[in-house]
Amino acid sequence: MALLLFDSTISGNCYKVRLLLAHLGLPYERREVDVVDRSNRLELLGGLNPSLRVPTLVLDDGRSIGESGAILWYFGEGTSFVPADRFDRAQMLQWMFFEQYDHEPAIAVVRFWLHYSGVPAGLEDRFEEKTAAGYRALGAMERHLDGHEWFAGGAYSLADIALYAYTHVAPEGNFELDRFPAVGAWLARVAAVPGHVPIDA
Amino acid sequence: MALLLFDSTISGNCYKVRLLLAHLGLPYERREVDVVDRSNRLELLGGLNPSLRVPTLVLDDGRSIGESGAILWYFGEGTSFVPADRFDRAQMLQWMFFEQYDHEPAIAVVRFWLHYSGVPAGLEDRFEEKTAAGYRALGAMERHLDGHEWFAGGAYSLADIALYAYTHVAPEGNFELDRFPAVGAWLARVAAVPGHVPIDA
Repeated sequence: MALLLFDSTISGNCYKVRLLLAHLGLPYERREVDVVDRSNRLELLGGLNPSLRVPTLVLDDGRSIGESGAILWYFGEGTSFVPADRFDRAQMLQWMFFEQYDHEPAIAVVRFWLHYSGVPAGLEDRFEEKTAAGYRALGAMERHLDGHEWFAGGAYSLADIALYAYTHVAPEGNFELDRFPAVGAWLARVAAVPGHVPIDA
Repeated sequence: MALLLFDSTISGNCYKVRLLLAHLGLPYERREVDVVDRSNRLELLGGLNPSLRVPTLVLDDGRSIGESGAILWYFGEGTSFVPADRFDRAQMLQWMFFEQYDHEPAIAVVRFWLHYSGVPAGLEDRFEEKTAAGYRALGAMERHLDGHEWFAGGAYSLADIALYAYTHVAPEGNFELDRFPAVGAWLARVAAVPGHVPIDA
C-alpha cells in the first residue's frame, strides 16, 4: 500500500485532501471513520493524530499527519498548488488559517447540524451565532474575490481547495450564497479546474 | 519604516510574532489595537486583513499579512525555525493548525475571560466547555512531549512558538499546569532558548 486516509465521505476537511490527491493523481486507500460515534477515536487515531480527528493521513512508511491544512501542505509543496513567491505562500496560509479559525467552525458546524445531526439540545443559541459568523466569513471572502480570481498568487492553490470544501456545501446549512456573487463565480471556477472531483466521488 | 505590527500587548497571537521577530533581530513598529472595543476594526484593518484581527503585519512595501501562523511562516521559512525536512515541516504545520483550532479557542478565551473581561453574561455554559476543551488540548501536548523535546523536527520551531504563547499564560485561565509535567518542562526549555523575550517585553 501507498497512502492511507482515515476519511469521512461527508467531511469537507477530508474532501480537501481527496481533491488535492485527485489533482496530483496519487492513489490511496480510504478508511471511513464514524463522525457521530467517536468512542473509538483514541484507539483508532491515538498514535497518529493529536486531535483524534479525520482527516489523518498515514504515509507508506507508517508516519502520519493530522490537520487538513498540514496534509495539503505536505503534498502541495513543490507543485503548482503552492505559489512560488514567498509573500504569495504567506497569503495562501493566511486564508488556510482563516478557513480553520473563522469559516469552518461556523459554516461546517451549521451545515452538519442542519443536514445531518439536527441542532443539539441546549445549543440553539449557537445556531444563530454560528450562522452570523458564517456570513461574516463569506463576506470576507466576497470582499477579496471582488477583484481577485483566486485567493493567493493569482492561481488556483491550496487556499482555494481549503475554502471550496465547506463553501460549496454551505447551502446545506441554509446559507444563501446568492448574496455573494463573487463567491459564486469563484465556486464555478474551482469546479471547472481540470481534475476536479466532487465531494461524493 | 521597515515593518509595522498591528499589535496587542496581551494577545498571545501577537506575542508569537513578537517572539519570532525578536529571535530574528528584525526591527518593527508596534501599533496597539484595542481588543475590547472593536468598533473601528473595519476602518483600521479592512484593507489589510480579512479577519480584521491582530496580529496584522504590514511589510515595508505596504503589502500585509494576517493570521499569526501565516506571519510566522513568512518570516520563518528559510531560517532555523522551520525544519528543512518536508515531513517535519508538515508536522510543524499540523501543530500550528492544532493550536488555532483546538488550543487557542479554548485556552485563550478562558484566560481572557478570567484575567481581563469577566465571563460574558449568558455564556457561563461556555466557560466549563472551553475549560474542558483546553484540558484536552493540554493532554494532547503532554502525550507528544512525553518522549519529544520539541513539537517538530527535533528542534525549536514555529510550532513551539505558536503553542508557547497561550500555554505559558494558561494559569491566568486557572488551568493547572502541574498536571502536565512534560508540558512544564517544555515551557522551561522554550523560555531558555537564546533570544527569548517575555510576553510583556
